[in-house]
Amino acid sequence: MTTLDDLPLRDDLRGLTAYGAPQLDVAVRLNTNENSYPVPDEVTAAIGKAVQAELRDLNRYPDRDARALRADLADYLGHGLGTANLWAANGSNEVQQQLLQAFAGPGRTALGFGPSYSMHPLLAAGTGTRWIGALRDPDFGLTPDAATEQIRAHDPDVVFLCSPNNPTGTALEPAVIDAVLAAAPGMVVVDEAYAEFARPGTPSALSLLSGHPRLVVTRTMSKAFGFAGGRLGYLAADPAVVDAVQLVRLPYHLSALTQAAARAALAHRAALLSTVDAIKQQRDRIVATLRERGIAVADSDANFVLFQVGGDQRTAWQELLDRGVLVRDVGLPGWLRVTAGTESETTAFLNALTCPLKESTA
Amino acid sequence: MTTLDDLPLRDDLRGLTAYGAPQLDVAVRLNTNENSYPVPDEVTAAIGKAVQAELRDLNRYPDRDARALRADLADYLGHGLGTANLWAANGSNEVQQQLLQAFAGPGRTALGFGPSYSMHPLLAAGTGTRWIGALRDPDFGLTPDAATEQIRAHDPDVVFLCSPNNPTGTALEPAVIDAVLAAAPGMVVVDEAYAEFARPGTPSALSLLSGHPRLVVTRTMSKAFGFAGGRLGYLAADPAVVDAVQLVRLPYHLSALTQAAARAALAHRAALLSTVDAIKQQRDRIVATLRERGIAVADSDANFVLFQVGGDQRTAWQELLDRGVLVRDVGLPGWLRVTAGTESETTAFLNALTCPLKESTA
Repeated sequence: MTTLDDLPLRDDLRGLTAYGAPQLDVAVRLNTNENSYPVPDEVTAAIGKAVQAELRDLNRYPDRDARALRADLADYLGHGLGTANLWAANGSNEVQQQLLQAFAGPGRTALGFGPSYSMHPLLAAGTGTRWIGALRDPDFGLTPDAATEQIRAHDPDVVFLCSPNNPTGTALEPAVIDAVLAAAPGMVVVDEAYAEFARPGTPSALSLLSGHPRLVVTRTMSKAFGFAGGRLGYLAADPAVVDAVQLVRLPYHLSALTQAAARAALAHRAALLSTVDAIKQQRDRIVATLRERGIAVADSDANFVLFQVGGDQRTAWQELLDRGVLVRDVGLPGWLRVTAGTESETTAFLNALTCPLKESTA
Repeated sequence: MTTLDDLPLRDDLRGLTAYGAPQLDVAVRLNTNENSYPVPDEVTAAIGKAVQAELRDLNRYPDRDARALRADLADYLGHGLGTANLWAANGSNEVQQQLLQAFAGPGRTALGFGPSYSMHPLLAAGTGTRWIGALRDPDFGLTPDAATEQIRAHDPDVVFLCSPNNPTGTALEPAVIDAVLAAAPGMVVVDEAYAEFARPGTPSALSLLSGHPRLVVTRTMSKAFGFAGGRLGYLAADPAVVDAVQLVRLPYHLSALTQAAARAALAHRAALLSTVDAIKQQRDRIVATLRERGIAVADSDANFVLFQVGGDQRTAWQELLDRGVLVRDVGLPGWLRVTAGTESETTAFLNALTCPLKESTA
């Protein structure tokens, strides 16, 4: 039998395993920061109708530039943005991959502040970009000075910021983004996948776009919109940035079905985003309950909470799984991440955690 | 206003324009080798139903490995292939990009025999792969000796073959693929986007997969299946090749809608592929008619025909467009490519070409 070792695979891929959380059939799945609420009937009807209208002409390629969808996304974001400021792809991973292809790639560097979204370094590897693993403070915070110092030390071509940060959950202070924009010689990508869950008063980097052509804000419909299965990520930036990614995007990368379904979802955003408040309540409930129990928890502006298990997080992960609750081991020693789901899912998680975990009693 | 020149774009992208044929609103569109027949009602009903069934759970990520779809694709291809031999992505462009990320990329090379599919060198550029432009014979053929000689001269990490070849239309002799497999030190990718249109007796490289773990055959549902708007490309290869692309694929790259729609289309393949014979008739009609008129035409196993215009192809392209027929200027001096569409579209093209083009009378 042929194995990977027999093939002329790139040396830098040898020994790696494919990225991705286990897709397990468990009652309570709180591991990939999905929105736990199914799509409401009124919205499935609207999406179904919009998709059906595309099917007869599926023999034709879709609009390569997805102009109608981009206009709808601009309308959703506000901030005076228009079609020319928006770009969309199959998930924000693809958007960020395109940004690296245009502005980083072989001979160039990208920098991010870990712990952060683990796909950022993988996207760098996949595009031949050298990754520079800068660091957050030990308490997962990031100050303007610490960010500036690390950027000046490396002069990266692309800086990734993640706000609210995955997996820690906390949004960045605007002063950090300002400082990074001032210090970074190249592009600054702010990954705002979880922006809709931020606590009141947390500004979006969208408000900084005007006058900052090297700033890019990426978003996704996978989280607050509950559209993870539809795969729609997007960016907002200066129109020149959109011109740049169009040089590297695959032609017709976004299917007619994706474009139609996403537009219908955006048209029904009031219904879809109505789950956000309930999710934030459960998020705050997790934070408050765990702190009451004396468990260390990072502040969260997202739909998940990072919590300390007081021992090996791999063992704790397995114990929660044995109790029917799937959470995420993000590879951070001693910590696990749990998605804020429905009230009953949250209860199931909190109950599963009540039985003392072996690690915390060891 | 900020322009691309003001951004820290990669130097190798400066001055380029985005790939893609003009998307013009013309009555007769024969420029992107789409299937001219709309999806039949029975199939739109089935796809619509399959998609609708996914919508309630769109809040969840799709099956990252697309196992059910890959099983259906294996069943369609036959040749003893199974799920483990198949991989799918958003168009064969994405499949080929993943292959280059796994087996080529920075410090490695890919080679193709031009004129051929113009995306192959662009995918190389986008993945940091150095492109080696080998050549077909002046009559667009490729002999085993010519292929072997050019491969030995360059020892490329990946060889692209295209059969039937786009834009020339002719399928490769199996002896060429055998010779390339024997000479190439690395991976051999046979792009069979148009395989379903091949003339009787033309074998597929699928029949060579057994015993050749470095061989990859890529296919698409955009052409014969009339599923261009659905964006579904795939590959068949040794399971170790599938393991390799899973190291570089973006997680959840294929939406739940795409997977469901493609599965429904495959289940109704008899209806969808029933257009292939009619298209081949029009393809043969174009070849025969143009040859009767003394116009040089390449043999075609595809749903398009490459024909000589006897002058500057850019002028001829514009004249056909002025007469309401959009064909493709593939950048081959003196030649244009026309898609075989419906009988009436073919008639419109042949009539538009009847009026002597300025170039051919100059």
